[in-house]
Amino acid sequence: MTLSPIEYHKNLRGKIVIRSKEKLDVNNLGIVYTPGVGEVSMAVANDKSLVRELTGKQNMVAIVTDGSAVLGLGNIGPEAALPVMEGKAAIFAQFAGVNAVPICLATQDTEEIIRTVKNIAPAFGGINLEDISAPRCFEIERRLADELDIPVFHDDQHGTAIVVLAGIINALKVVGKKKENVKVVISGAGAAGIAISELLAEYGITNYCLCDSKGVINEHREDLNKYKTEALADSMGSCPIGSCVLALHGADILVGVSQPGQFTAEDIKQMNEKPIVFALANPVPEITPEEALTGGAAVIATGRSDFPNQVNNALVFPGLFRGLLDAGVTKVTTEIQLAVAEAIAGLIESPTANNIIPSIFDENVVPVIVKAVSKHK
Amino acid sequence: MTLSPIEYHKNLRGKIVIRSKEKLDVNNLGIVYTPGVGEVSMAVANDKSLVRELTGKQNMVAIVTDGSAVLGLGNIGPEAALPVMEGKAAIFAQFAGVNAVPICLATQDTEEIIRTVKNIAPAFGGINLEDISAPRCFEIERRLADELDIPVFHDDQHGTAIVVLAGIINALKVVGKKKENVKVVISGAGAAGIAISELLAEYGITNYCLCDSKGVINEHREDLNKYKTEALADSMGSCPIGSCVLALHGADILVGVSQPGQFTAEDIKQMNEKPIVFALANPVPEITPEEALTGGAAVIATGRSDFPNQVNNALVFPGLFRGLLDAGVTKVTTEIQLAVAEAIAGLIESPTANNIIPSIFDENVVPVIVKAVSKHK
Repeated sequence: MTLSPIEYHKNLRGKIVIRSKEKLDVNNLGIVYTPGVGEVSMAVANDKSLVRELTGKQNMVAIVTDGSAVLGLGNIGPEAALPVMEGKAAIFAQFAGVNAVPICLATQDTEEIIRTVKNIAPAFGGINLEDISAPRCFEIERRLADELDIPVFHDDQHGTAIVVLAGIINALKVVGKKKENVKVVISGAGAAGIAISELLAEYGITNYCLCDSKGVINEHREDLNKYKTEALADSMGSCPIGSCVLALHGADILVGVSQPGQFTAEDIKQMNEKPIVFALANPVPEITPEEALTGGAAVIATGRSDFPNQVNNALVFPGLFRGLLDAGVTKVTTEIQLAVAEAIAGLIESPTANNIIPSIFDENVVPVIVKAVSKHK
Repeated sequence: MTLSPIEYHKNLRGKIVIRSKEKLDVNNLGIVYTPGVGEVSMAVANDKSLVRELTGKQNMVAIVTDGSAVLGLGNIGPEAALPVMEGKAAIFAQFAGVNAVPICLATQDTEEIIRTVKNIAPAFGGINLEDISAPRCFEIERRLADELDIPVFHDDQHGTAIVVLAGIINALKVVGKKKENVKVVISGAGAAGIAISELLAEYGITNYCLCDSKGVINEHREDLNKYKTEALADSMGSCPIGSCVLALHGADILVGVSQPGQFTAEDIKQMNEKPIVFALANPVPEITPEEALTGGAAVIATGRSDFPNQVNNALVFPGLFRGLLDAGVTKVTTEIQLAVAEAIAGLIESPTANNIIPSIFDENVVPVIVKAVSKHK
């Protein structure tokens, strides 16, 4: 009998457990705690950099959310975000041995979030921002990355962008197209959509159009925030005035990071030959794999585990933070992001339509990411 | 070969480890994380109180410090405080199965600390304030206890007061004195000293004098903060003008929570017959047990594990939080504190001079505290 998610969570009552690394006994308690620990504290007081050698800071990550953009569920608040953050912490623990702690904030004010994260930073080796809505997430990440001396990574942006790029690298091999020649439509211009456009451009895919809920983003739109304007400026694509479906005409790749049921088989038929369709809205994709197939899609990916080609940023964050922490990297540069995407893609030797991306249970994923990070530090 | 504390900590690199409660596999990942977890988040979004049933909030405690009063080492900052906080977290984990997370703050501003703790509170079931200097700690604790709906407990104040009272209860049995008749001198009027005076008064020991670095606190002093003034007002004791040694004359109990080497055997000889001496400065006590004995002390306690009668608040906080979290108690009332002190004292059936307080490795400690808390919720 399978338990429902609610029943499962009711039985589990939390997904992580904290243990003492060593069993405390009469012999070590006076070292781990008072009086012996005083000597260790004094050593750190005299040389703050020793905190990385003498404590677990370098293996502690704060998963910070304000609950404003949780999964596809929207602004459901910090308590409702906690089950997701605990899931991430469990994944961090099992796949990469990273001690990750859910920090769910009772504020959605940009300055207050920045100040709070800076205040709690001393005991953490890295900050994983999570499920914070756009455009606030861009400012929060930029400021924290600038002002802290530990790596700051907004997973919804860059984790998604990295895993999407990994999938696209292999999907292009399957359909025999070159990155220089493809046209991409990104449906969704929030945290994920903007970051995907940026990383694709850095990778060399510059012919793209972004769409938001009002249609294609182009130079005639007067309602764009600065992030959408920048993404448009970086594109070499010719982006029509009108609905996202219009932009699909002749496109090679559709990346959906938006809402369920945006596209039909007919829409996919407007695309170039051998179209690639990533329908990543979760849990209900922008178009079902069946319909995308009917529309002629040559490669189809979703965010779900019950279809082939699951594009899930859980492929990225455990190994990425393991690599950042181990190598003492403090900035997640574009070079690192590109290297990680290529490392993930490289795990599939001969990509096929139904196999463009490794499973998160593939034990090689974390090690190749760690290696990629350490090479580009 | 025994490792030095520094070597020990260098090998260990952190004292806690976070694990996934259940091993993640292809069957449960879609429940623990997306897509299944979405249903759980929506349930909490619709009824915030479900966060206590469907997540680990009710077993998560933040150990919050600003590094301003770490052990007896003073204001050594948040990084230097981390080894101590990790030690506490390891003790929480092993002795009471509480998931405790070190939160070391990069601010020592009272309002900023209050705001930060309130901001991170949603994912935690309790707040253990630690090693925050007086008098800021009083305001911070009071405000957070008032403004949060989870228990807030400053261990340096109340953990110390509870364990001291437990020890005094049994020490009085050993010397055959009654609480109504004894006179107490408390050396140290910081977080611990003030809290000890308050709890002793609630217990019925109202004849006490407090001393700080300037001598005995009395009504002629014009340099007292409001907390010292209040502690003085609550005392029925007649507190002389002058040094702390003066106050010792005829006293039954000396509680030192101050600095090493404050007292000599000669000073103890000024006390009433069968004097009780708690010299709790750590690691070096106010007077060595040998000297206290020379001075005629009938019962001697220290904060150290290498002498009999270790009075250590590690006896209190694991069981206290286990009890608070399990019983859903949101305020640590004076009744709870008194009940916990009596429960700890009660574990020693026939107290003797060298056995007034149980070991923290006594497996009965946590259960009796949990029971005491649940009775007084």
